[in-house]
Amino acid sequence: MPAISNKGQIMPQSPIRKLVPYAEAAKARGVEIHHLNIGQPDIKTPQVALEAVKNNAIDVLAYSHSAGFASYREKLAAYYNKNGIAVTSEDIIVTTGGSEALLFAMGSVTDPGDQIIIPEPFYANYNGFATASGVEVVPVISDLDSGFALPPIADFEKLITSKTKAIVICNPGNPTGYLYSEEEIKQLAALVKKHDLFLIADEVYREFAYDGLKHHSVMTQRDIDAHTIMIDSVSKRYSMCGARIGCIVSRNKELISTAMKFAQARLSPPTFAQVASEAALETPASYFTDVIDEYVSRRNTLVEGLETIPGVKVAKPKGAFYCIAELPVENADAFAQWLLEDFQLDGKTIMVAPAAGFYSSEGVGLNQVRIAYVLEENLLKEAVTILREALQQYNA
Amino acid sequence: MPAISNKGQIMPQSPIRKLVPYAEAAKARGVEIHHLNIGQPDIKTPQVALEAVKNNAIDVLAYSHSAGFASYREKLAAYYNKNGIAVTSEDIIVTTGGSEALLFAMGSVTDPGDQIIIPEPFYANYNGFATASGVEVVPVISDLDSGFALPPIADFEKLITSKTKAIVICNPGNPTGYLYSEEEIKQLAALVKKHDLFLIADEVYREFAYDGLKHHSVMTQRDIDAHTIMIDSVSKRYSMCGARIGCIVSRNKELISTAMKFAQARLSPPTFAQVASEAALETPASYFTDVIDEYVSRRNTLVEGLETIPGVKVAKPKGAFYCIAELPVENADAFAQWLLEDFQLDGKTIMVAPAAGFYSSEGVGLNQVRIAYVLEENLLKEAVTILREALQQYNA
Ligand SMILES: Cc1ncc(COP(=O)(O)O)c(C=O)c1O
Ligand SMILES: Cc1ncc(COP(=O)(O)O)c(C=O)c1O
Repeated sequence: MPAISNKGQIMPQSPIRKLVPYAEAAKARGVEIHHLNIGQPDIKTPQVALEAVKNNAIDVLAYSHSAGFASYREKLAAYYNKNGIAVTSEDIIVTTGGSEALLFAMGSVTDPGDQIIIPEPFYANYNGFATASGVEVVPVISDLDSGFALPPIADFEKLITSKTKAIVICNPGNPTGYLYSEEEIKQLAALVKKHDLFLIADEVYREFAYDGLKHHSVMTQRDIDAHTIMIDSVSKRYSMCGARIGCIVSRNKELISTAMKFAQARLSPPTFAQVASEAALETPASYFTDVIDEYVSRRNTLVEGLETIPGVKVAKPKGAFYCIAELPVENADAFAQWLLEDFQLDGKTIMVAPAAGFYSSEGVGLNQVRIAYVLEENLLKEAVTILREALQQYNA
Repeated sequence: MPAISNKGQIMPQSPIRKLVPYAEAAKARGVEIHHLNIGQPDIKTPQVALEAVKNNAIDVLAYSHSAGFASYREKLAAYYNKNGIAVTSEDIIVTTGGSEALLFAMGSVTDPGDQIIIPEPFYANYNGFATASGVEVVPVISDLDSGFALPPIADFEKLITSKTKAIVICNPGNPTGYLYSEEEIKQLAALVKKHDLFLIADEVYREFAYDGLKHHSVMTQRDIDAHTIMIDSVSKRYSMCGARIGCIVSRNKELISTAMKFAQARLSPPTFAQVASEAALETPASYFTDVIDEYVSRRNTLVEGLETIPGVKVAKPKGAFYCIAELPVENADAFAQWLLEDFQLDGKTIMVAPAAGFYSSEGVGLNQVRIAYVLEENLLKEAVTILREALQQYNA
């Protein structure tokens, strides 16, 4: 039998993959599961986007331009300008999700054997894209006690080698919910400028900033235009995860023309989804205020609930819709499995994502879980009750 | 300024990219261009697929399963079984176009520095996916005089090294239009078995086999189940290029579970497009007979026309919708540019793809072009007239 590639063998799996069979078995036993483990919003997709697809007049479903519809790129540029990011459509390539934008960015700035530095805990699939690109992720630890603030710049500098090509940040953060301050973004800007690195900023949760805080994009740092690459996506913004539309944005023309070569090889991003995404830009502002209000109440319900559980520590998120909670257990992985395998409260249990999968340092975050608040508030309340009971039993 | 990756620098560009500005300038001068250079069918997408999208009842456009809708995979398996390929839905991962399936296949079987052998001329983007994966393409020449038949097995064996991981074929071929015989497929099967290699068969044109010839899939060679990987796509079959739906099919469970890790990292294939693709499987058989009839008449018109031009040699395609023509010029690249820059016949000209871009051997195919017959017959007739006149003037 021919051999699978080494890369294929070490490709990491999803942090919750091991739990899936236990969840299925629990469901088969009739146990109801509250899914706190997923990042799929339950929020309705804007009507204007869905209608545009229903009313499309396509008769030959053709490839689009490899960079995406020109009309969509123009409107996207206008959206960014309105949000204080001065770009033109030439600075944008439409991609198949933020996922593909990340892959194009890594391919454009790294070769096999190169390194990228990422504050951990981080979105687990960065590991997957790095492995697929033959690139090594070098983590720099951020911690719960600081709310997962930017680690000291000195910590980054200790890790920079001749192989370091980029620093990757996620802002607001999945899984941390942390929103970088303007000061932190400026520190990062100075760092990449000093060491001549790329700064890849995953801003797919850019609209989800709470408590009146402002989102500070790396693209506003005009003295590092040659360094900045922004990753964006319609997935979370418009609850359109299934569209598979994102984009890579940079004012570095060489970077964009390189990413275009990757884009041309795969021909085009999906057409129906571009129709939806272009229309989604017409979403009324009230949609966002409603959605943000909803997430803020959910966050408050969840965090306030978690804080009443003895031994539970949580970093209150300022953005996105995740938080990391430290639990009074030794191994959150075993606990998460136990929740599905051995526990129920009135026929219900919860599924959480063990946080170790969001760290690439061995042995860190073992007592943490990521909780996504993409469930209605009454379900989140129930989830907190279930967690409280479960921890009591587990530790008894 | 931080440096672009080496990989990004050597990523090949499309064979027609250099011509695009000349085409734009010609259009600006009011010259009408018959595009013989593209693989975008002009055929209408089946109504049943378009209607399914218009009538969708989605209110939250969610991620699908990373392997694609279960219902779609079931129906796809049924489609393959009907076509003599015994597979189950477990053997299939739905991808974002055949393009992504190729990328997953390369990532699953090769590491940076490995080699894959491909009969040339071949689909130019194989080069792009190989470069993105850090893999070297080793070409084995097939020639126009044999109609681009499979090169002798001995020619492959001469090129196999310890770094060779797979042989990639395209059947029917883009850009050759060649359809491998059952005997040729059996020879390839024996070869990959003997040398323990993967056989990646790009069968995206599987339905386009002409003159009563049968398409022989590598999947019918049951003694090499562990070796075969089939790449497929709805792009050409249903004239749904913009859907971005394809699949990777293999009975090798380890291969599929490896490809699944790549699939999970990018979350899911596009949802609307899966709705369309699932419905497309209900396309009435008459659609295909009509489409095939149409392509056969176009091919006949084109090939018969080309054969009347002095000095033009063409391999009559047995499938797909491309052919390679040898022209009485030294450098088809320069000629193709001249067609756009300096020539017109009654205000019209043609755009062709210089074939050198489909070879990875330096200096081969310099006097060849690829012509796609995705235009209506009267336009193809005109195109032949234009080519005849152009060659006469060019060589005068
Ligand atoms: C931080 C982050 N980046 C990127 C993505 C990829 O999303 P998509 O490919 O759907 O745009 C996700 C999805 O969960 C995410 O959480
Ligand atoms: C031979 C071949 N393989 C694969 C593809 C990729 O097609 P898609 O990604 O649209 O499925 C094409 C498109 O032209 C092709 O000609």
